[in-house]
Amino acid sequence: MKISLDETAGLLEKAQKIIITAHINPDGDAVGSSLGLGAFLMSKGKEVRIYIDDKLPRNLSFLPGYDLIKRLDDERFDADLAVILDTDMGRIGAVSDLIIGKKTLNIDHHISNDGKADYVYIEKRAATAEMVFEIIDYVKAKIPLSVALPLYTGLATDTGFFKFSNTRSYTMMAAARLIDCGVKPNEVSEALEQKPLSVVEGEIEALKTLTMAANGRIAGIFLDYELSSKIESTEGFIDLIRVIEGVDVAVMIKGISPNVCRASIRSKGFDVSKIAMKFGGGGHIRAAGCTLNMPLEEAKKMLLDSLVSALEENK
Amino acid sequence: MKISLDETAGLLEKAQKIIITAHINPDGDAVGSSLGLGAFLMSKGKEVRIYIDDKLPRNLSFLPGYDLIKRLDDERFDADLAVILDTDMGRIGAVSDLIIGKKTLNIDHHISNDGKADYVYIEKRAATAEMVFEIIDYVKAKIPLSVALPLYTGLATDTGFFKFSNTRSYTMMAAARLIDCGVKPNEVSEALEQKPLSVVEGEIEALKTLTMAANGRIAGIFLDYELSSKIESTEGFIDLIRVIEGVDVAVMIKGISPNVCRASIRSKGFDVSKIAMKFGGGGHIRAAGCTLNMPLEEAKKMLLDSLVSALEENK
Repeated sequence: MKISLDETAGLLEKAQKIIITAHINPDGDAVGSSLGLGAFLMSKGKEVRIYIDDKLPRNLSFLPGYDLIKRLDDERFDADLAVILDTDMGRIGAVSDLIIGKKTLNIDHHISNDGKADYVYIEKRAATAEMVFEIIDYVKAKIPLSVALPLYTGLATDTGFFKFSNTRSYTMMAAARLIDCGVKPNEVSEALEQKPLSVVEGEIEALKTLTMAANGRIAGIFLDYELSSKIESTEGFIDLIRVIEGVDVAVMIKGISPNVCRASIRSKGFDVSKIAMKFGGGGHIRAAGCTLNMPLEEAKKMLLDSLVSALEENK
Repeated sequence: MKISLDETAGLLEKAQKIIITAHINPDGDAVGSSLGLGAFLMSKGKEVRIYIDDKLPRNLSFLPGYDLIKRLDDERFDADLAVILDTDMGRIGAVSDLIIGKKTLNIDHHISNDGKADYVYIEKRAATAEMVFEIIDYVKAKIPLSVALPLYTGLATDTGFFKFSNTRSYTMMAAARLIDCGVKPNEVSEALEQKPLSVVEGEIEALKTLTMAANGRIAGIFLDYELSSKIESTEGFIDLIRVIEGVDVAVMIKGISPNVCRASIRSKGFDVSKIAMKFGGGGHIRAAGCTLNMPLEEAKKMLLDSLVSALEENK
């Protein structure tokens, strides 16, 4: 059942023993909104357990309460409410077993949410952390740093440090309020920006393959299976070349096995989802992807040729 | 004479023909606060000329009014007020000649400002654009996009997109208000992030020299004279390695001639100004620099050795 801000605040107010969870493959908003809501409810004297059924990103370990998040538990905890954050119920891993039969409240800024929880509060917002901030602000609570810091982190990560198009006036106003509560933006950014040496080394190897095409309108990087299997995460790699002046389309292809490649395509307006669809993939106008069942060199040639032709046609 | 916000607003209100200028080697805040204030004053029916005696950064060309900024002028313009932004009067190049004998108003967020203008409004703020926003907000003016976009750009650039320690609650609140006036944060960030291909190629060459020392506590990159003379700007290069997990000190040395090198040193808390001073340089605890009169290989060895010893002592 879809509910309002007021009803969401009321449900949280009434509950005494609360489970909080968020999606697997957790990001700053999943962890930040969980910790922020958790710390707030605990400050109100409620009993709270936070479960996320996955490894947590190491660069979030500066957040107060990070060590309290458990993957799963043998303990019997008779929660009277389970809150699912930043996803619908389908992506919480084995935590679904823990909350069987419990009343569920789902708070999420993804409008694709399937709405299957008992109570669902969904809004198109920059981050789930922004919604949690609004709930806390709504009940006029004082916000301790243990709440403010995770919420700010959720806002900052889901908006790419206030750079993405989801950044709205309210997002900045919420950030301003959280800074008033003691958040130091530089400490958050320094903590979040940390990358393992292996990732930076991977970036270097990837950048060495930089290939320009279509008179500088296409930039590509290419990671073979050997290289990509060594790198923890290639998130953000494509942004290193997307920012080159004159580049309309940036592409990264990585081998996910010796004969299968995964391509990510980004544009500044040119519809790349059409190209991705041609190869059985999909996405949006400015961000798309596809899987290519061939070795890297072949995938590179095929995709670049296809992009060059598409750009030619669209001059 | 130091004046208040109220007096500053009053001076601007009274003036009819106004010159605006900012520092040479202009950045987003110099250009953004100039254009923002200029557009605001023009919207009030005043005559305005903006001069900056230097090349403007190309990635700011999306700003409305960018083409109106002149380096100098043969035209005789009888201004009754000259406004110097984001610097004291010592760093405005040949514009000083244009404003001889005119009443000067200096608005700057650098507290190192020498205070030599007739009227000086200085505050420790995130950006001069933030001060201009406050002035406009003080007189309760409606803010058109032509004013809001440059001011937002000034805020965003001087705070490293709201990541630096100068980012305060008021900064975010100002950003929120400017978004309300129509600024699209993603459009600003996309425009600002653009880099020439030559700069990205320079980054790649620099990253290839990545050297770790002191068990991963030091990361360094090294650009010989040949390479560094080909690169438009090495700004931000050191940040590529400063973010490596476990790195306390990041260093970049570049040859500025075959036998002279310039070193930049950054830390996450370890006092690097001491090291820089040892070599005749200086700076702050977390950011320092020095010039080394020797070839790159020698400079690299000497500085790394010195940093390793210093870190050893400070374990």
